[in-house]
Amino acid sequence: MFVHETTVRVRYGETDRMGYAYYGDYAEFFEVGRVEALRSLGFPYKRIEDEGVMLPVHELTVRYHQPALYDDLLTIRTRIIAMPTVRIVFAYELLNEAGVLLTEASTTLVFVDRATMRPCRAPAALVEALRRSFAR
Amino acid sequence: MFVHETTVRVRYGETDRMGYAYYGDYAEFFEVGRVEALRSLGFPYKRIEDEGVMLPVHELTVRYHQPALYDDLLTIRTRIIAMPTVRIVFAYELLNEAGVLLTEASTTLVFVDRATMRPCRAPAALVEALRRSFAR
Amino acid sequence: MFVHETTVRVRYGETDRMGYAYYGDYAEFFEVGRVEALRSLGFPYKRIEDEGVMLPVHELTVRYHQPALYDDLLTIRTRIIAMPTVRIVFAYELLNEAGVLLTEASTTLVFVDRATMRPCRAPAALVEALRRSFAR
Amino acid sequence: MFVHETTVRVRYGETDRMGYAYYGDYAEFFEVGRVEALRSLGFPYKRIEDEGVMLPVHELTVRYHQPALYDDLLTIRTRIIAMPTVRIVFAYELLNEAGVLLTEASTTLVFVDRATMRPCRAPAALVEALRRSFAR
Repeated sequence: MFVHETTVRVRYGETDRMGYAYYGDYAEFFEVGRVEALRSLGFPYKRIEDEGVMLPVHELTVRYHQPALYDDLLTIRTRIIAMPTVRIVFAYELLNEAGVLLTEASTTLVFVDRATMRPCRAPAALVEALRRSFAR
Repeated sequence: MFVHETTVRVRYGETDRMGYAYYGDYAEFFEVGRVEALRSLGFPYKRIEDEGVMLPVHELTVRYHQPALYDDLLTIRTRIIAMPTVRIVFAYELLNEAGVLLTEASTTLVFVDRATMRPCRAPAALVEALRRSFAR
Repeated sequence: MFVHETTVRVRYGETDRMGYAYYGDYAEFFEVGRVEALRSLGFPYKRIEDEGVMLPVHELTVRYHQPALYDDLLTIRTRIIAMPTVRIVFAYELLNEAGVLLTEASTTLVFVDRATMRPCRAPAALVEALRRSFAR
Repeated sequence: MFVHETTVRVRYGETDRMGYAYYGDYAEFFEVGRVEALRSLGFPYKRIEDEGVMLPVHELTVRYHQPALYDDLLTIRTRIIAMPTVRIVFAYELLNEAGVLLTEASTTLVFVDRATMRPCRAPAALVEALRRSFAR
């Protein structure tokens, strides 16, 4: 299993009339989590895409236990539990500064070859980097 | 069961670098779906909130089958399948102008009394309006 | 001068902690205004782009007189005052249902040839459609 | 004059079909700039608001010279040039990692007493902190 942590601060523009982070804006928090997780593995998402592979999101599941509030500095804990195939699953936990678990989520993304627009296998180098990480 | 349909057009600001509607922006499409569904029942969401009841989202699940594209005029089909208790579940289907099913989703929202910030039962008048609708 | 009106309803996701529409989300309202204005002239923005011309925004100016609130049904009045050259200027007024002027804004967009990524002249057919409109 | 710098990375959800950061999403970048500038002065915006003063944006002007692109790590340089009265003006410059000036902007915000919803003077302690900063 690969685990990575990064932080994101809730912006005013991400709050809603209740003073909570709007439920749709969490998608960007999860995006930050997985992009920084991939970067830490040596695979900036931008490079994956520049090499002709896209990673559209196929499934999203979120459970909002407690609201994230304006100016909260959230910790995003991102996990890759299984080796990617044509799919890669990321699991997320959001915690506030007091360490309270606010949100649990997961996303399934599909590797798509931009030339053919067909699903394709995960880049071999990414699989290899994860294999090394899992072996640790 | 209660079914309601409305439309929403994908804005440029909702597209991403792939030319797809960004996966997080669908949350606003579902919001439009349930808000217009409630309005058609005589319960503008704003009024529910002005009467002291909030409806934060507790769970979100989305399956993205095909991407929604820039300027697509999407039909949002919103269903309420079960009578609300302290929770209300909405199921959504997004279809493009060709009638292709792009996305399926559901959200679970919790009725919260703003005075106590505790879960509370759905407003009786909303339950009654749904009961009449289900009986049809 | 060409004038066009359309409407947009303020979504919950567009409100902020003050209960106002977030100042950055107005950009999408103005986008809706100019896109529908162009569509009414027979030039869906998508088609302009599909024909190889992009229209990035070069300047934006907004004066927020009164806040737009959750669920407000806003009228967007969009004006094209001068014939487009390599630039096109749109002026906007946002009004609420009571007819109160909430916001005034303008955007300057530049026609860019996607093949060369250089500024280019407005499509002749668009200029012609505007000329006919101005002559009315 | 008070100058502050912070950074923000362009998210995928902030890009559009051109691959540029959407023109409306810059508003959040400027928000990050001024919020972090105020925090560095000892005035987290959240605290200002919790003490009963709101700061809605009254004017926004942006000039987009070059597009910010996906994954760009932007420097936001925020300046307060004049002492705040009932208004405070922030000027912004966005630069990419190569130091290229992408965007110039300014926002005028108004101090509003939440109890009366009337404009009010800037908190004395903030004025004093800026006075010390200007004197340096």
